[in-house]
Amino acid sequence: MTARERVRTIVDASWFQGTVVSLILVNGVILGVETSTRVMAAHGGLLHAIDLCILALFVVELALRMFAHRAAFFRDPWSWFDLVIVGIALLPASGPFAVLRVLRVLRVLRLLSVIPSLRHVVAGLFRAMPGMMSILFLVVLLLYVSAVMATRLFAEVSPQYFADLPTSLFTLFQIATADGWGTIAKDVMEHEPMAWVFFVVFVLVSTLVALNLFIAVAVEALERDDDEPPRGGGEGRAGHGGSGPDDEGPEGQRLILAELRALRAEVESLRREREGVGPG
Amino acid sequence: MTARERVRTIVDASWFQGTVVSLILVNGVILGVETSTRVMAAHGGLLHAIDLCILALFVVELALRMFAHRAAFFRDPWSWFDLVIVGIALLPASGPFAVLRVLRVLRVLRLLSVIPSLRHVVAGLFRAMPGMMSILFLVVLLLYVSAVMATRLFAEVSPQYFADLPTSLFTLFQIATADGWGTIAKDVMEHEPMAWVFFVVFVLVSTLVALNLFIAVAVEALERDDDEPPRGGGEGRAGHGGSGPDDEGPEGQRLILAELRALRAEVESLRREREGVGPG
Amino acid sequence: MTARERVRTIVDASWFQGTVVSLILVNGVILGVETSTRVMAAHGGLLHAIDLCILALFVVELALRMFAHRAAFFRDPWSWFDLVIVGIALLPASGPFAVLRVLRVLRVLRLLSVIPSLRHVVAGLFRAMPGMMSILFLVVLLLYVSAVMATRLFAEVSPQYFADLPTSLFTLFQIATADGWGTIAKDVMEHEPMAWVFFVVFVLVSTLVALNLFIAVAVEALERDDDEPPRGGGEGRAGHGGSGPDDEGPEGQRLILAELRALRAEVESLRREREGVGPG
Amino acid sequence: MTARERVRTIVDASWFQGTVVSLILVNGVILGVETSTRVMAAHGGLLHAIDLCILALFVVELALRMFAHRAAFFRDPWSWFDLVIVGIALLPASGPFAVLRVLRVLRVLRLLSVIPSLRHVVAGLFRAMPGMMSILFLVVLLLYVSAVMATRLFAEVSPQYFADLPTSLFTLFQIATADGWGTIAKDVMEHEPMAWVFFVVFVLVSTLVALNLFIAVAVEALERDDDEPPRGGGEGRAGHGGSGPDDEGPEGQRLILAELRALRAEVESLRREREGVGPG
Repeated sequence: MTARERVRTIVDASWFQGTVVSLILVNGVILGVETSTRVMAAHGGLLHAIDLCILALFVVELALRMFAHRAAFFRDPWSWFDLVIVGIALLPASGPFAVLRVLRVLRVLRLLSVIPSLRHVVAGLFRAMPGMMSILFLVVLLLYVSAVMATRLFAEVSPQYFADLPTSLFTLFQIATADGWGTIAKDVMEHEPMAWVFFVVFVLVSTLVALNLFIAVAVEALERDDDEPPRGGGEGRAGHGGSGPDDEGPEGQRLILAELRALRAEVESLRREREGVGPG
Repeated sequence: MTARERVRTIVDASWFQGTVVSLILVNGVILGVETSTRVMAAHGGLLHAIDLCILALFVVELALRMFAHRAAFFRDPWSWFDLVIVGIALLPASGPFAVLRVLRVLRVLRLLSVIPSLRHVVAGLFRAMPGMMSILFLVVLLLYVSAVMATRLFAEVSPQYFADLPTSLFTLFQIATADGWGTIAKDVMEHEPMAWVFFVVFVLVSTLVALNLFIAVAVEALERDDDEPPRGGGEGRAGHGGSGPDDEGPEGQRLILAELRALRAEVESLRREREGVGPG
Repeated sequence: MTARERVRTIVDASWFQGTVVSLILVNGVILGVETSTRVMAAHGGLLHAIDLCILALFVVELALRMFAHRAAFFRDPWSWFDLVIVGIALLPASGPFAVLRVLRVLRVLRLLSVIPSLRHVVAGLFRAMPGMMSILFLVVLLLYVSAVMATRLFAEVSPQYFADLPTSLFTLFQIATADGWGTIAKDVMEHEPMAWVFFVVFVLVSTLVALNLFIAVAVEALERDDDEPPRGGGEGRAGHGGSGPDDEGPEGQRLILAELRALRAEVESLRREREGVGPG
Repeated sequence: MTARERVRTIVDASWFQGTVVSLILVNGVILGVETSTRVMAAHGGLLHAIDLCILALFVVELALRMFAHRAAFFRDPWSWFDLVIVGIALLPASGPFAVLRVLRVLRVLRLLSVIPSLRHVVAGLFRAMPGMMSILFLVVLLLYVSAVMATRLFAEVSPQYFADLPTSLFTLFQIATADGWGTIAKDVMEHEPMAWVFFVVFVLVSTLVALNLFIAVAVEALERDDDEPPRGGGEGRAGHGGSGPDDEGPEGQRLILAELRALRAEVESLRREREGVGPG
């Protein structure tokens, strides 16, 4: 057993995975506690030390996994996820990069890559992406066109909401989530009584498009669900949405086909025999 | 007929169940009326007496059911539900436990365990749980990570919403339900103009995850629905979502297979006969 | 042709139905115009006269339909709907019954009973009802129990929202629609910091129950959809949700079965022939 | 090759389509930048020149496509979409038509007609329309009837929300989107304590109808999905919603049927042979 194989055995062991999960959880709690200025004043040094310690352990863990799996490590997108997240924590976070310090909390998201069932859920979310892309682009297009129109129409009347393009984009995104759009519309309609046309059309269209986005994702999910192999063993149930009793289908057909081929062989032997007998 | 059998006959009788339902309804009305200080001033003593009386009857009912079904009683989770709810009402509710007095209203929820169709609905809700667990954990994880980030970023700027971790968690939960998030975001953006990145990403991600949670539950429900036996008799319709005409499928295949086996037996007998004849 | 048959021919004619639809639409416009005090001051008398005139025509129409169809008229729930709506308009609407004058607008809803496609949609809504009943009862139960608890817990702290049982019920209904619940919760939490437990649990449970209500209705709708006969002719497409290509399934099986039976007859004739030949 | 054929080759070339997409994107950015008064003050002339230039190119593009495809051009609804959008930009936009200037932004929507995947999404949205029509009409009817009632009931009490029919319609549309309906209802209930009946019923009914609208669209989408041919080649996967494993179904049946026909031919030849032999 080479050193690499030995490391791989360790890295793939369940106790190793368990340790990593525990470290992430502890780290998550510490990062949460660090938001309290009172606790930081009392135990800031200790917390920071543990934080650094866990970060070092993460670096060691990634190095071991890299050594054990080599190319396979870099082919797994989750490895890149881990590398980026741990990498962020290693960058110096001073001056203009102070915001990186905040992103350190993302380390808790390593749970997603370490716990298989969460990994599965996130993979599902990403698999739904391509099906949504054209609709998402349509949403962005509608937001942009509406924002340009709203800025031109309402910039002078209601600068609070539509002063320039970015402000209009934010306001329309807010309206698309149906949050407080009544107040915004009323504010504009005080000066532009016909503005209700714009708002009602925008709310209707964005709801309709969101509805279709939703349905596209749902159809995708039902599809995905069907493509997955059945959970049980060989004879397990095979799909959702109406195929319950059909599971016996292909199995039954295989039986029929086998029976049919045996029968044909029988008849063929019968004929060959007969041909041998007939002329004799 | 032993005493236990006689008690079981009583406990399982429909008039007994009906009486319990009536008692719960009466109790529910009383608990509602007790919230009115005006009525309590006039008839408080009487209402309290009826309340105690019904509680005593519940205790007797549970004791009878316990005596009648013994082990089976404790194997049913709904029995435990009843026991806990009646138990809460029996605890002394003074001093630090005053909140228990409020929980007495939960007694009305005994309707869930007593009326079969409600029991069915609640069981359905609980059966959908395991399918949601990983996504719910993902939601909690996202809320936690976002709350830590928000506290670090906005605690000084907008202490009203993000003063500390618990406050941030509550605010983000509120934003995730799309209730008044525009106001909160605007408040923060006055001081941190780039905060819209955080809010837009959070709203989008939480909507996407909620969407997938929703779809997971829906798929689970459709699945569950398919697994259930058809409602009608032997030839009843068998599933939803597309399997209408397929019901004949397996039935047809069984016919084909039977026909095929009979045919093969025929051909085999033909050959055996022929073998007996041929050389003769 | 008796008088009754002649009336029935008239009543069922499409020009009669069309006239009724036009009358309802005209009546709807008039009822809308009557809300304008300015128009009423100028043409109030004329509008009122037309209104009365149309009402009289409705009474005649119902009388004709009653005479034409007799028992069948009273067996159709839509007839009762028409009778009640026209009846409301005939009641004297003065003194304590002034609110009935407002209900006269419901006359426009007669469109629902007259236009077949609308009738179909409403029938669909009502058919979804039984599937929702247990869940709706569960919702009402949860609202009631939560309102009793909220009144007991928050009546003194936040009388604006939870003064008594009816007020609490309204507030919780509002929270269940996720409208402004953050403001309400914040208001209560100022005095009762732990109140967030109640609100978060209530929002989560009511969302979960609403979700299941939704799914129950959707499953019902898909089911209903499957039960309906295919739209096309004899060979039309047969179902939704996955059965597209399967339509050939049963058809193919029928072909196979026919082929198989023909084959068996062939083999049987072969054997019978052989039996007649063999011993001969 | 005639001039028309040569133009058609150009117009249908992918580089031509790509150029048009780029022009639309550039035009979109310019229209966005033009909303900034600061940029307009500095480079207004240049931007306007580019804008006019691109508009001229669009006119040339449409003329070429019209010349190349003739009747086919006018049969495609997307061509009409392009014509109307470019036509709007050509109209003089002064005096009472100043609003047309704003509609010029719609030019960016030409992306919908030029990029096939977007065209597909929009076509899907429109195909869902007929299934929604009756429900949408029902929604409009409910809104109208409710608005007439609300105006009559609350015009004096709460003129801010229910002064006249248009105001009531807007307010009720806002309530139907569950945006701030609590505030509106509370405002009215201060003077009309029983107004909660109206609001609760309206919220419940509009939610129920919206739910059914949603489900109608979803069922339509699933249906549409089933009708579409499989994406892959001959052996591609064939449907969604439960037909996963069934894909082998028809294929297997074809195998069975072929096998069966071969067998029958075999048996037939056996019999014919035997008939020729038997009597010989």
